Amino acid sequence: MHRYRSHTCAALRKSDVGQTVRLSGWVHRVRDHGGVLFIDLRDHYGITQVVADPDSPAFKVAETVRGEWVIRIDGLVKARTDETVNKNMPTGEIELYAHEIEVLSAARELPLPVFGEPDYPEDVRLKYRFLDLRRETLHKNIVKRTQIIASMRREMNNVGFTEYSTPILTASSPEGARDFLVPSRIHEGTFYALPQAPQQYKQLLMVAGFDRYFQIAPCFRDEDPRADRLPGEFYQLDLEMSFVEQEDVWNTMEPVIRGIFEEFSNGKPVTQTFRRIAYDDAIRAYGSDKPDLRNPIEMQTVTDHFAGSGFKVFANMIASNPKVEVWAIPARTGGSRAFCDRMNAWAQSTGQPGLGYIFWKEEDGNIAGSGPLAKNIGEERTEALRTQLGLEAGDACFFVAGDPAKFYKFAGEARTRAGEELNLVDRDRFELCWIVDFPFFEYNEDEKKIDFAHNPFSMPQGGLEALENQDPLTIKAYQYDMVCNGFEIASGSIRNQSPELMVKAFEKVGLSQADVEERFGGLYRAFQYGAPPHGGMAAGIDRVVMLLVGAKNLREISLFPMNQQAQDLLMGAPSPATPAQLRELALRVTPTPKKD
Amino acid sequence: MHRYRSHTCAALRKSDVGQTVRLSGWVHRVRDHGGVLFIDLRDHYGITQVVADPDSPAFKVAETVRGEWVIRIDGLVKARTDETVNKNMPTGEIELYAHEIEVLSAARELPLPVFGEPDYPEDVRLKYRFLDLRRETLHKNIVKRTQIIASMRREMNNVGFTEYSTPILTASSPEGARDFLVPSRIHEGTFYALPQAPQQYKQLLMVAGFDRYFQIAPCFRDEDPRADRLPGEFYQLDLEMSFVEQEDVWNTMEPVIRGIFEEFSNGKPVTQTFRRIAYDDAIRAYGSDKPDLRNPIEMQTVTDHFAGSGFKVFANMIASNPKVEVWAIPARTGGSRAFCDRMNAWAQSTGQPGLGYIFWKEEDGNIAGSGPLAKNIGEERTEALRTQLGLEAGDACFFVAGDPAKFYKFAGEARTRAGEELNLVDRDRFELCWIVDFPFFEYNEDEKKIDFAHNPFSMPQGGLEALENQDPLTIKAYQYDMVCNGFEIASGSIRNQSPELMVKAFEKVGLSQADVEERFGGLYRAFQYGAPPHGGMAAGIDRVVMLLVGAKNLREISLFPMNQQAQDLLMGAPSPATPAQLRELALRVTPTPKKD
Repeated sequence: MHRYRSHTCAALRKSDVGQTVRLSGWVHRVRDHGGVLFIDLRDHYGITQVVADPDSPAFKVAETVRGEWVIRIDGLVKARTDETVNKNMPTGEIELYAHEIEVLSAARELPLPVFGEPDYPEDVRLKYRFLDLRRETLHKNIVKRTQIIASMRREMNNVGFTEYSTPILTASSPEGARDFLVPSRIHEGTFYALPQAPQQYKQLLMVAGFDRYFQIAPCFRDEDPRADRLPGEFYQLDLEMSFVEQEDVWNTMEPVIRGIFEEFSNGKPVTQTFRRIAYDDAIRAYGSDKPDLRNPIEMQTVTDHFAGSGFKVFANMIASNPKVEVWAIPARTGGSRAFCDRMNAWAQSTGQPGLGYIFWKEEDGNIAGSGPLAKNIGEERTEALRTQLGLEAGDACFFVAGDPAKFYKFAGEARTRAGEELNLVDRDRFELCWIVDFPFFEYNEDEKKIDFAHNPFSMPQGGLEALENQDPLTIKAYQYDMVCNGFEIASGSIRNQSPELMVKAFEKVGLSQADVEERFGGLYRAFQYGAPPHGGMAAGIDRVVMLLVGAKNLREISLFPMNQQAQDLLMGAPSPATPAQLRELALRVTPTPKKD
Repeated sequence: MHRYRSHTCAALRKSDVGQTVRLSGWVHRVRDHGGVLFIDLRDHYGITQVVADPDSPAFKVAETVRGEWVIRIDGLVKARTDETVNKNMPTGEIELYAHEIEVLSAARELPLPVFGEPDYPEDVRLKYRFLDLRRETLHKNIVKRTQIIASMRREMNNVGFTEYSTPILTASSPEGARDFLVPSRIHEGTFYALPQAPQQYKQLLMVAGFDRYFQIAPCFRDEDPRADRLPGEFYQLDLEMSFVEQEDVWNTMEPVIRGIFEEFSNGKPVTQTFRRIAYDDAIRAYGSDKPDLRNPIEMQTVTDHFAGSGFKVFANMIASNPKVEVWAIPARTGGSRAFCDRMNAWAQSTGQPGLGYIFWKEEDGNIAGSGPLAKNIGEERTEALRTQLGLEAGDACFFVAGDPAKFYKFAGEARTRAGEELNLVDRDRFELCWIVDFPFFEYNEDEKKIDFAHNPFSMPQGGLEALENQDPLTIKAYQYDMVCNGFEIASGSIRNQSPELMVKAFEKVGLSQADVEERFGGLYRAFQYGAPPHGGMAAGIDRVVMLLVGAKNLREISLFPMNQQAQDLLMGAPSPATPAQLRELALRVTPTPKKD
């Protein structure tokens, strides 16, 4: 018989009854039922119940074992009685009568219980991550994460992509976030950088004539702690294709991502055909470029109903500034003064002056608008509003007025809040869509200049013609996001592969050709020697896994995460270097003077 | 029709004749045959021949295109005449008559030709890697590399392993080589390290209850330039299993690796059942722990034949020191004075005093030994040697005497040289074997102390008992290598998962429990809380790929390698940090004073 096991702890069934077998695993828990010991033996695959009765030669050892000891057990498989069959366990029809128990590894008193997985402080969980990872929920989450990633690889292979690994020790690249630097020992005073994303390399792969690239790519950003990103490293499903337009990327990736969601959604419905929503339309309808489409509320522009109306606050704003609009946030089933007042109070708590509303109720067989705003604009306009918005008695609507560029975020938050408070959001589904036609440039209020809105590598719609003749702030990019349930899960673009266009685009944000060469030299040089049209995207793996396992915290889906202070409590990183190491790297640590 | 292509450049066949199609790709070359232009259009998938005749509206543009321009071509698929069919190309039965050509991206004059791939200096190839990668051989090698890695993943999944990604920003770990350090911005004066291997993490995964781990793992070592390792990063097929003995690892991985070799060997035979050769036996038979088994020469110990013989040099050595042995290197078909003298001259060129030999020839129907050594020991001993070694007329044998610990490497080199010079090595096969039972400790002559021979994480054979009672230098480890054609392609061990045994083993090399805790704290701590017996191995992916594609240089199988001075000439890394970056990291560069 094998030294450690003939079966895993998930393998034994009724058909094995009568066999002598060997199992190894961890003591999940021990119970004493009237002198008979029951040991739940656990391994990666499952749990088997072991019985040690006082007559067994194994009993003496069984009495000594404690939770999380690793033991080997030889025994006889017996059927459980009908009353003791456990239908929730794959091995629930049998139990193992122990003949012999060998302790393979004892455990000291546990700093963190595994069985029952009670809440425990995060620093303890991270320091003893090897125990934390034995806990059922985290263990399952990690297994599901590996399955999701394996499925991504499989699906990408199925649609003709090949996985290439790009360098991890590379050049600093000013892509937005802060680089992690790696000092070079051989070239004193110089540094490698860890890639924020394989953006330039994947584009170089296209220029090098490889066609459909993907990678489960480690990415590194030295950012300050953020709730939605682990410090240090994270993984992207990164991909790029040659000779494509943006529709090709969408048509290729939509079935892949839908397939992955369907495979792991536990039966929750997944959007079959992703809507393609222009950025401007998303902002207008949802107040966000990452709308949660499970929330059925769609905002509408209702400026005309307020222009010249008796509600002077709005009417005067509209009259004095052509940029001013009024947006309506229809809230079905929200038609009570109590709810409307709650929303108003919430708005004030976020620093807004308030949130105007109308709610409708049935009065004498008619639907009548209520609230101060309805009174001010009068019955006719109130009814016209109701008709446009398709609302009924029992519904409400909130109104926000001003320059949409300044209020759209708040309007989006009000939409979210109304949807959630009124339980309009169907939480048990995955609603996916594309947000497309992002602006290419944006106005940087702080520096009073034009900046790239997203990705300087993207192709502007309209090409050279647009860059030369169009108001830059109206130029769109072939740039798109994939959004699920209010989270951006992927982002991509068709790339600007023309050196001439690249220089022209950078000029608009105040950078010269020399700047382009300095910052993106490898890529800029490559574009001079026959670059195919290409584009792609990158999906955030952590976010997809979180959505699919229903985790709220990144550390619940990560194997060995750092804490929020970017420390690995298990391995003790970061830590001081030795003087010899610093000498070899020609570096000296020069602490920042403390302020008091 | 699609904006860029209806087919790839490898897709068109005779059955497509008569269709109007669209292709995009790179101009591989242009030929002018009596005024008709032939363009070989290339993409990732293949090449299609395009014809532009002077009557075609595409001719004008066709006249302007040059090598490596990216173009789109619309045209009519025509069958080639019987004389012009090219059976070596999948598209060789057709050609495309161009109607329209669009230049998608022109190319400047090429610093590195793609077509014909003439030899070019390596710095140019690395700086213009995106052109280099378009060359047929490198492009094919990279594609094969991706296929080999995809096959590794598939095979590992098939035998029940799951891929887990372990952290890349981690703690410095004194595993032998030099770490790359990454300064922490948040914790001034401290550093992360890039992993030399995921050794500790994979063991922690086993302690955390995951059973069969693998990873295509990036590893980082800051080593001085070496011909057989790229500077910076390299990849391992890394794996670990719980509840196993070493035979389980061998029995699991042998079919996986054999399968990969068979899949990519281009029909060359691959060893079906890997021999398991004890380290000591490998040294004796091959003078190496990475023997090339394609070389049929096996050395033998022949000390007795020389003890007390008339060859006084050997006889006196044997008499004066019980450690002295004489090893024979039989060389079939090497039986000529000219060859033996060449071997002797080679030995002297490596600093050896010489290489004694006997060669046999037929004389008057008898087999007679020749050479000074045969004369000295006489006919009887010469014949006894010949009989033991199974040699015939026309064969030779070389002899090395002394302390085997000091001469075995030279003996191994002589074996290799004899096998290669005599063409005994069958180059068209893959000979794989396991080298097992490596010594646990070795004597460090420089520091006059005992060191770990290989891996401090390995389990010593005989356990605590051996550590307490046995001469440490005779203790073996459950440690093994996989060797192919003279290269170590994988290495592994059963791990020492007992904290007590770990401390005892480190004591032998002069390290205390505190040292263990400091160096391997995470792992040592984990072993206190229920650690399963476990073991695994790691295979060097670069080496496997090199063997399978027949490449001699690592840069021929790597996508974006650094040069031997650890510089990325394409991206310009490493490079100076900005003063702001250094300030954020609380670092100052302090150049080493130059010596003159």
